[in-house]
Amino acid sequence: MFSIHYKITCYEGENIEEKTEWICLEQSVELPERIVPNTILDKVKGQVKNVKQVSEQVFEVEIGWPEENVGEDLTQFMNLLFGNISLGRGIKVTHVDWHQLGEIFIGPGFGVNRIREKLNIHRRALSCGVLKPLGSSPEELADRAAEMAAGGIDIIKDDHTIAGQNYAPLKERVQAVTNALKNYGSDSKSTAYFPNITASGTRIMHNYELVRSFGVDGVLLLPHLCGYEIMHEIASIDPGLPIIAHPALTGALISDPEHGFTPDFLYGELFRAFGADFIVYPNTGGRFSFSAEECKAINYTARNTDVPFKPAFPMPGGGVKWQNLPGWIELYGTDTVFLMGSSLFSYPDGLKKAVSEVQKILEAHII
Amino acid sequence: MFSIHYKITCYEGENIEEKTEWICLEQSVELPERIVPNTILDKVKGQVKNVKQVSEQVFEVEIGWPEENVGEDLTQFMNLLFGNISLGRGIKVTHVDWHQLGEIFIGPGFGVNRIREKLNIHRRALSCGVLKPLGSSPEELADRAAEMAAGGIDIIKDDHTIAGQNYAPLKERVQAVTNALKNYGSDSKSTAYFPNITASGTRIMHNYELVRSFGVDGVLLLPHLCGYEIMHEIASIDPGLPIIAHPALTGALISDPEHGFTPDFLYGELFRAFGADFIVYPNTGGRFSFSAEECKAINYTARNTDVPFKPAFPMPGGGVKWQNLPGWIELYGTDTVFLMGSSLFSYPDGLKKAVSEVQKILEAHII
Repeated sequence: MFSIHYKITCYEGENIEEKTEWICLEQSVELPERIVPNTILDKVKGQVKNVKQVSEQVFEVEIGWPEENVGEDLTQFMNLLFGNISLGRGIKVTHVDWHQLGEIFIGPGFGVNRIREKLNIHRRALSCGVLKPLGSSPEELADRAAEMAAGGIDIIKDDHTIAGQNYAPLKERVQAVTNALKNYGSDSKSTAYFPNITASGTRIMHNYELVRSFGVDGVLLLPHLCGYEIMHEIASIDPGLPIIAHPALTGALISDPEHGFTPDFLYGELFRAFGADFIVYPNTGGRFSFSAEECKAINYTARNTDVPFKPAFPMPGGGVKWQNLPGWIELYGTDTVFLMGSSLFSYPDGLKKAVSEVQKILEAHII
Repeated sequence: MFSIHYKITCYEGENIEEKTEWICLEQSVELPERIVPNTILDKVKGQVKNVKQVSEQVFEVEIGWPEENVGEDLTQFMNLLFGNISLGRGIKVTHVDWHQLGEIFIGPGFGVNRIREKLNIHRRALSCGVLKPLGSSPEELADRAAEMAAGGIDIIKDDHTIAGQNYAPLKERVQAVTNALKNYGSDSKSTAYFPNITASGTRIMHNYELVRSFGVDGVLLLPHLCGYEIMHEIASIDPGLPIIAHPALTGALISDPEHGFTPDFLYGELFRAFGADFIVYPNTGGRFSFSAEECKAINYTARNTDVPFKPAFPMPGGGVKWQNLPGWIELYGTDTVFLMGSSLFSYPDGLKKAVSEVQKILEAHII
């Protein structure tokens, strides 16, 4: 039995007992209780563990679920979590008790410490530059990778929009970029490359093997597009590659304050449980609408040591200006990877110079 | 170039020109326009085709996108559609012009007419019973399938929560149900069975081949869990099996009236383009919160003949009472499959009798 925690809002005509009971049935038997045998109900129905009223209409509710309802494939976990109730209203998933799920979920394959060892970066925050824009050729992307590597960037990832288009097909792109990166770095420190291998689940393992054969350092995945379970399968490969997880298409799950997931649950808990070593999320004050409190909560849950998984690196992006890095490091701490695109590409003195300014700031802020 | 249509709401401090421009850049180059070469912008940037103000804050906007931005894998279509902008607000996708995408998307492999031929049901609405609840053994599910088949039900589908759990593993379940169904029906009319094969993309084709080897009549998929592109791949198999698509986990995409997708776009257009022959959606007046107008709009887009795809069957469920079928048939027309679970299972005279009452109503309402 593991618990899912919900914030439930009761609207006119609803009461918390009925709404909670509805969740317990809707996410299991999907039948009225009176026509289901007790032997089935005892086995699969959700069990209300706790209900706490926090305002006139709002309740914090804990419901216990049998692990057996998930089964052999974690795709079904997403269904149990928010399958049919996503079509309701006033139900916000805030937290899962992962302790009971430590046998089912693997969490990050590497986590903060193994990533730091792998990259040989120990006490400071990290930088990640984005290879973009869509429409560039493999050679153009490789040139930009080289410039960023020359400036000393820690990690380069493909822009999440760059996938299997003819502009820069995966094989040609990864070949060009990995070749270009060979000319930079040293024995003790080089730039890591994470290409985007996101594709249909029937092709993603092929992409994984392909980019691995070129010696890449990790992969970029968009779990809400390819399926969360595939990220988990890739995280389970041993020896494997670290994973950067990108939040594409997840926005509607977090934008309604009364329905969906909290950002810290979705990114800090769920992405991490499914195997993300790095968790991309939209930083506050950028092009998206997250608050500083929401960002700090994501950081907290991504790194929280009170769960049976390795800590993950939060990776705030989407409008991080490198000039403001000192403030962000102070606010978020050094176990953070700052994801930068526009502010590097916009620097008048060029990409290489922008990155070397970034690295100076990171080196100067050792905590 | 194909068009996506949006309903855009401008909040305080926003204006429509900037917000539209932001979408054109954010969903392509993800960089400020001034630092991107024209050769790239001309190739990949979204192009505003039309802006029409409908109220003080709300605008209908059409943006054209190059097909080349999608590439070899339709996973990227979901990214182009709502990847990063899902993290914004006030952007509702209402429609895609599919005519330009008829080469990329296949739509339903069977569609209404071929399904009618296959099932030999020509002029009336259809019934679909749900095999449930989760927790039942393969034999218990097979018994229920037999009862429904004895009553003459047209289609049986697994409950969407029944997947790979140990209660009734896929192979044992499909074996038991297909065996049980052999004893019912006639040469001209038998009950079709659609098991749930949803799983991680790496395993779903294995499940497909497995259930096919047992002679099932179609499959149930949860595209938002396994990835839309996989549904499309399965729809592309020829000769293949028809697909019932279930809306699990999609709710947050449609619940905000100002952000996400309209229900008729998501279910009627997108599910259909990606290959759904049957489109499950929550009927009005049931356990979920759709309006009659929204349901009729889904029906319209699912069957609309002005797109390059075969029409799909709308499959309203989630609280359809069979006693009310005459009214629903009148409202929705006969090219509808009525999905029923609780109201059949709750019938005091038993499942077989309930189904035979349903079939009498369907036969009596030929249009």
